Amino acid sequence: MAELGEFALIERINSGRTQTPAVLLGPGDDAALLAAPGGRFVVTTDMLVQDRHFRLDWSSPYEIGRKAIAQNAADVVAMGAVPTGFVVALGCPGETPVALIDGLADGLWAEAAVSGGSIAGGDLVRDSHLVLSVTAFGDPIGPQPVLRSGARAGDVIAVAGRLGWSAAGLAALSAGAGERTEFADAVAAHRVPSPPYRAVLDAMTAGLAPHALTDVSDGLLADLGHIATASNIAIDLDGGALIDRYLEELAEALDADAAQWILTGGEDHAFAAAWPAGTALPAGWTRIGVVGAGQGVTVDGVRPAGRGGWESFAGADSAQRPGSR
Amino acid sequence: MAELGEFALIERINSGRTQTPAVLLGPGDDAALLAAPGGRFVVTTDMLVQDRHFRLDWSSPYEIGRKAIAQNAADVVAMGAVPTGFVVALGCPGETPVALIDGLADGLWAEAAVSGGSIAGGDLVRDSHLVLSVTAFGDPIGPQPVLRSGARAGDVIAVAGRLGWSAAGLAALSAGAGERTEFADAVAAHRVPSPPYRAVLDAMTAGLAPHALTDVSDGLLADLGHIATASNIAIDLDGGALIDRYLEELAEALDADAAQWILTGGEDHAFAAAWPAGTALPAGWTRIGVVGAGQGVTVDGVRPAGRGGWESFAGADSAQRPGSR
Repeated sequence: MAELGEFALIERINSGRTQTPAVLLGPGDDAALLAAPGGRFVVTTDMLVQDRHFRLDWSSPYEIGRKAIAQNAADVVAMGAVPTGFVVALGCPGETPVALIDGLADGLWAEAAVSGGSIAGGDLVRDSHLVLSVTAFGDPIGPQPVLRSGARAGDVIAVAGRLGWSAAGLAALSAGAGERTEFADAVAAHRVPSPPYRAVLDAMTAGLAPHALTDVSDGLLADLGHIATASNIAIDLDGGALIDRYLEELAEALDADAAQWILTGGEDHAFAAAWPAGTALPAGWTRIGVVGAGQGVTVDGVRPAGRGGWESFAGADSAQRPGSR
Repeated sequence: MAELGEFALIERINSGRTQTPAVLLGPGDDAALLAAPGGRFVVTTDMLVQDRHFRLDWSSPYEIGRKAIAQNAADVVAMGAVPTGFVVALGCPGETPVALIDGLADGLWAEAAVSGGSIAGGDLVRDSHLVLSVTAFGDPIGPQPVLRSGARAGDVIAVAGRLGWSAAGLAALSAGAGERTEFADAVAAHRVPSPPYRAVLDAMTAGLAPHALTDVSDGLLADLGHIATASNIAIDLDGGALIDRYLEELAEALDADAAQWILTGGEDHAFAAAWPAGTALPAGWTRIGVVGAGQGVTVDGVRPAGRGGWESFAGADSAQRPGSR
């Protein structure tokens, strides 16, 4: 890659790509130009560091690229907005094979397309290991973005997407069991999350907006905790609604706790929302609890023990969890 | 910092800050919300890696923060747009002193204010060394952003801001002469560039837009080369207009070449523009050349030998140039 040079490599990464209509001007000038039809846009950013958020022996460059976009696109959708574009800053060693960059770029573009956006620009610098920094943009569908602070007593808590699968896949990989057939789906979910973008976007487009919405990136308890705190309400989950037979089988094989994966595993980028009482839940959503007066999150009325989720700096064990954030 | 935890640290970084009116929603939800009054916005991103783009023994955290924002804000202004907001992803070791993060954050916020914007959000992760990834947003002033591709034969080439001072400061630091009084201004310019934002923004607001515009981040020859290529024209510079007596003195003391600093030094984030023939140049702008038919950039009719600027991957010597990009 050092031989090719920055400008040639950027040209190579961008050649043959098609921008979405929202990207009015793509790479090549001092900055890109994006449409913001409603006069405003949502923006979020996430950084992924090699051997901390991903490992090259556990994921292909293509998978890493997809995951980097998915976790940012999920944040945009979690505001009730349609992803429009992304910019990507990439740090990598000079001896990085061009094929690795090509794979990353293909993954970035593929997931951008799945989410509805395209890669509007970026930066390429040298670093001693891979670092990907993605910033995502979106166009709010409703008159207001959907925040974490809108939940009210009586609302129904529902999720769209999988919970705990990524954590189970990570556990399988960490145990050296990533190649075993029964873990294949969980490992795949860990390598490339599949945020159910459409479950949010179709509902919003049909005029159905939840009171509060977030994506599950830090773990269900932690992310619902953010909603509970921001909305100044309490959430009680129905433990029975969270049972996942597939994860229970995997947990037994690994001598692990499926409930722990489901309640505290991040990275599935499912969506969790508080819907108005009496709402017929839109396609893709499953009821898992209710909102009441008070504070915090309980399961069947009991406050779970232990850490509720994932913090990047929350102690020495965090460095042992590549793939998590 | 590991003890404080990600969320507490983010809260600390953001406490007491005032967002600009363009930031409709700041940190705390899945994403931020920014205004884009004209229905579109410009966006650019740059990544800075410790010991490659900055050194903690050469710059304070505050200076590094200011520089990280300045180089992104300059790209926004180089599109003829007013900076509105920034998001910042920061990677750092768990043992990073909180005071270092505080200094960085103060620098980021200070330069954001100078440019007209504020820090709308970010991400904080662990890495083995410091990595800063900044994404900047802006609101185009005119009906169209000012691109590199609009220069026409007969246009006047002019610059606003300093050329070569950052390169001279870097040379002084590299030679271990960073503390000598005569180098103080150049070293200061290397540590914190002062892009003359107002020279562009005031002209644009007054209805005076150049045909083509860029910021000088890769070196004057390289960046004017981008305008020449994008506009399919030739640029001839007036060598006499580029002479800088201060840099000549410093070059003599360091046995270096002042012209080389001026023509190929990046990082001053001056602005270079092609103005329509006959334009009375706005305040802060100095004529340095003309646009003609043909291709490439010449000085007094002669094509300069050697590399025209800086590429992150352009060979082994790049790693020897921390602070450059």
